[in-house]
Amino acid sequence: MEVDYFWKNIFVETTEIIGLVAGLLTTVAFVPQVIKTWKSKSARDLSLVMFSLFCLGVFLWTIYGIMINQLPIILWNIITLILASVILFFKIKFKD
Amino acid sequence: MEVDYFWKNIFVETTEIIGLVAGLLTTVAFVPQVIKTWKSKSARDLSLVMFSLFCLGVFLWTIYGIMINQLPIILWNIITLILASVILFFKIKFKD
Repeated sequence: MEVDYFWKNIFVETTEIIGLVAGLLTTVAFVPQVIKTWKSKSARDLSLVMFSLFCLGVFLWTIYGIMINQLPIILWNIITLILASVILFFKIKFKD
Repeated sequence: MEVDYFWKNIFVETTEIIGLVAGLLTTVAFVPQVIKTWKSKSARDLSLVMFSLFCLGVFLWTIYGIMINQLPIILWNIITLILASVILFFKIKFKD
Protein backbone atom coordinates (compact mmCIF):
# COMPACT_ATOMS: atom_id res chain seq x y z
CA MET A 1 0.00 0.00 0.00
CA GLU A 2 2.81 2.39 0.91
CA VAL A 3 4.66 1.51 -2.30
CA ASP A 4 1.51 2.28 -4.36
CA TYR A 5 1.26 5.64 -2.63
CA PHE A 6 4.93 6.33 -3.40
CA TRP A 7 4.49 5.66 -7.14
CA LYS A 8 1.24 7.61 -7.26
CA ASN A 9 3.06 10.60 -5.82
CA ILE A 10 5.89 10.26 -8.34
CA PHE A 11 3.28 10.13 -11.14
CA VAL A 12 1.44 13.24 -9.91
CA GLU A 13 4.70 15.17 -9.52
CA THR A 14 5.97 14.08 -12.96
CA THR A 15 2.65 15.16 -14.51
CA GLU A 16 2.91 18.58 -12.83
CA ILE A 17 6.50 19.04 -14.01
CA ILE A 18 5.59 18.06 -17.59
CA GLY A 19 2.69 20.55 -17.55
CA LEU A 20 4.98 23.24 -16.20
CA VAL A 21 7.71 22.64 -18.81
CA ALA A 22 5.05 22.43 -21.58
CA GLY A 23 3.59 25.80 -20.53
CA LEU A 24 7.05 27.33 -20.25
CA LEU A 25 8.04 26.14 -23.76
CA THR A 26 4.86 27.18 -25.61
CA THR A 27 5.18 30.62 -23.97
CA VAL A 28 8.94 31.34 -24.27
CA ALA A 29 8.80 30.04 -27.87
CA PHE A 30 7.47 33.48 -28.87
CA VAL A 31 10.52 35.33 -27.47
CA PRO A 32 12.93 34.38 -30.31
CA GLN A 33 10.24 35.40 -32.85
CA VAL A 34 9.85 38.80 -31.16
CA ILE A 35 13.66 39.30 -31.18
CA LYS A 36 14.04 38.12 -34.80
CA THR A 37 11.25 40.36 -36.11
CA TRP A 38 12.47 43.33 -34.06
CA LYS A 39 16.02 42.95 -35.43
CA SER A 40 15.08 42.29 -39.08
CA LYS A 41 12.18 44.80 -39.16
CA SER A 42 10.61 42.35 -41.59
CA ALA A 43 7.38 40.43 -41.00
CA ARG A 44 6.37 39.64 -44.59
CA ASP A 45 6.34 35.86 -44.11
CA LEU A 46 4.28 36.01 -40.89
CA SER A 47 0.55 35.42 -41.31
CA LEU A 48 -1.58 38.32 -40.04
CA VAL A 49 -4.58 35.99 -39.74
CA MET A 50 -2.54 33.47 -37.71
CA PHE A 51 -1.42 35.99 -35.09
CA SER A 52 -4.86 37.66 -34.95
CA LEU A 53 -6.66 34.35 -34.31
CA PHE A 54 -3.92 33.21 -31.94
CA CYS A 55 -4.11 36.40 -29.81
CA LEU A 56 -7.91 36.12 -29.63
CA GLY A 57 -7.61 32.44 -28.65
CA VAL A 58 -5.01 33.12 -25.94
CA PHE A 59 -7.20 35.97 -24.62
CA LEU A 60 -10.09 33.47 -24.30
CA TRP A 61 -7.74 30.95 -22.57
CA THR A 62 -7.00 33.69 -20.00
CA ILE A 63 -10.74 34.28 -19.43
CA TYR A 64 -11.18 30.48 -19.16
CA GLY A 65 -8.37 30.34 -16.56
CA ILE A 66 -10.06 33.10 -14.55
CA MET A 67 -13.44 31.30 -14.70
CA ILE A 68 -12.01 27.96 -13.49
CA ASN A 69 -9.70 29.87 -11.10
CA GLN A 70 -6.44 28.27 -12.30
CA LEU A 71 -3.52 30.64 -11.74
CA PRO A 72 -1.01 28.73 -13.96
CA ILE A 73 -3.42 28.94 -16.94
CA ILE A 74 -4.01 32.66 -16.28
CA LEU A 75 -0.29 33.52 -15.92
CA TRP A 76 1.07 31.51 -18.90
CA ASN A 77 -1.65 32.88 -21.16
CA ILE A 78 -1.20 36.52 -20.10
CA ILE A 79 2.55 36.29 -20.89
CA THR A 80 1.85 34.50 -24.20
CA LEU A 81 -0.80 37.13 -25.04
CA ILE A 82 1.72 39.95 -24.48
CA LEU A 83 4.39 38.26 -26.66
CA ALA A 84 1.99 37.28 -29.47
CA SER A 85 0.48 40.80 -29.42
CA VAL A 86 3.96 42.32 -29.87
CA ILE A 87 4.48 40.10 -32.94
CA LEU A 88 1.02 41.10 -34.26
CA PHE A 89 1.94 44.77 -33.69
CA PHE A 90 5.24 44.28 -35.61
CA LYS A 91 3.34 42.57 -38.44
CA ILE A 92 1.08 45.63 -38.78
CA LYS A 93 3.93 48.14 -38.22
CA PHE A 94 6.52 46.66 -40.61
CA LYS A 95 4.37 46.79 -43.73
CA ASP A 96 5.49 44.52 -46.57
CA MET B 1 -31.86 27.27 -4.43
CA GLU B 2 -33.20 26.30 -7.84
CA VAL B 3 -32.24 29.71 -9.23
CA ASP B 4 -28.67 29.30 -7.88
CA TYR B 5 -28.44 25.92 -9.56
CA PHE B 6 -29.69 27.43 -12.83
CA TRP B 7 -27.01 30.16 -12.81
CA LYS B 8 -24.30 27.71 -11.75
CA ASN B 9 -25.21 25.54 -14.75
CA ILE B 10 -25.10 28.55 -17.09
CA PHE B 11 -21.65 29.44 -15.66
CA VAL B 12 -20.28 25.91 -16.13
CA GLU B 13 -21.63 25.71 -19.70
CA THR B 14 -20.27 29.17 -20.58
CA THR B 15 -16.86 28.17 -19.20
CA GLU B 16 -16.86 24.99 -21.29
CA ILE B 17 -17.84 26.90 -24.44
CA ILE B 18 -15.11 29.53 -23.85
CA GLY B 19 -12.52 26.75 -23.37
CA LEU B 20 -13.72 25.06 -26.55
CA VAL B 21 -13.57 28.25 -28.65
CA ALA B 22 -10.16 29.14 -27.13
CA GLY B 23 -8.77 25.70 -28.08
CA LEU B 24 -10.30 25.93 -31.54
CA LEU B 25 -8.78 29.39 -32.17
CA THR B 26 -5.24 28.66 -30.92
CA THR B 27 -5.25 25.52 -33.09
CA VAL B 28 -6.84 26.75 -36.36
CA ALA B 29 -4.66 29.90 -36.11
CA PHE B 30 -1.83 27.82 -37.60
CA VAL B 31 -3.80 26.94 -40.75
CA PRO B 32 -3.45 30.39 -42.46
CA GLN B 33 0.31 30.32 -41.68
CA VAL B 34 0.64 26.87 -43.29
CA ILE B 35 -1.29 28.09 -46.38
CA LYS B 36 0.67 31.37 -46.61
CA THR B 37 4.08 29.68 -46.32
CA TRP B 38 3.09 26.93 -48.76
CA LYS B 39 1.95 29.49 -51.35
CA SER B 40 4.87 31.91 -50.96
CA LYS B 41 7.54 29.19 -50.51
CA SER B 42 9.21 31.74 -48.25
CA ALA B 43 9.83 31.30 -44.53
CA ARG B 44 12.70 33.75 -44.00
CA ASP B 45 10.85 35.86 -41.38
CA LEU B 46 9.73 32.83 -39.34
CA SER B 47 11.89 31.99 -36.33
CA LEU B 48 13.30 28.44 -36.43
CA VAL B 49 13.82 28.55 -32.66
CA MET B 50 10.21 29.64 -32.08
CA PHE B 51 8.67 26.76 -34.02
CA SER B 52 11.17 24.21 -32.59
CA LEU B 53 10.39 25.21 -28.98
CA PHE B 54 6.67 25.47 -29.76
CA CYS B 55 6.51 21.95 -31.29
CA LEU B 56 8.39 20.50 -28.30
CA GLY B 57 6.03 22.33 -25.91
CA VAL B 58 2.89 21.15 -27.71
CA PHE B 59 4.28 17.58 -27.71
CA LEU B 60 4.67 17.84 -23.90
CA TRP B 61 1.09 19.25 -23.63
CA THR B 62 -0.08 16.09 -25.45
CA ILE B 63 1.82 13.86 -22.99
CA TYR B 64 0.36 15.93 -20.13
CA GLY B 65 -3.15 15.44 -21.57
CA ILE B 66 -2.56 11.67 -21.76
CA MET B 67 -1.30 11.58 -18.14
CA ILE B 68 -4.30 13.50 -16.75
CA ASN B 69 -6.58 11.63 -19.19
CA GLN B 70 -8.18 14.73 -20.76
CA LEU B 71 -9.26 14.01 -24.33
CA PRO B 72 -9.80 17.70 -25.34
CA ILE B 73 -6.21 18.57 -24.32
CA ILE B 74 -4.88 15.51 -26.20
CA LEU B 75 -6.88 16.22 -29.39
CA TRP B 76 -6.28 19.99 -29.67
CA ASN B 77 -2.57 19.51 -29.04
CA ILE B 78 -2.16 16.67 -31.55
CA ILE B 79 -3.76 18.82 -34.27
CA THR B 80 -1.66 21.87 -33.26
CA LEU B 81 1.47 19.68 -33.24
CA ILE B 82 0.78 18.52 -36.80
CA LEU B 83 0.19 22.09 -38.06
CA ALA B 84 3.20 23.60 -36.24
CA SER B 85 5.41 20.70 -37.44
CA VAL B 86 4.38 21.42 -41.05
CA ILE B 87 5.46 25.07 -40.58
CA LEU B 88 8.74 23.91 -39.00
CA PHE B 89 9.28 21.55 -41.96
CA PHE B 90 8.62 24.44 -44.42
CA LYS B 91 11.07 26.65 -42.48
CA ILE B 92 13.80 24.01 -42.93
CA LYS B 93 12.80 23.16 -46.52
CA PHE B 94 12.49 26.71 -47.90
CA LYS B 95 16.03 27.81 -47.06
CA ASP B 96 16.59 31.57 -46.92
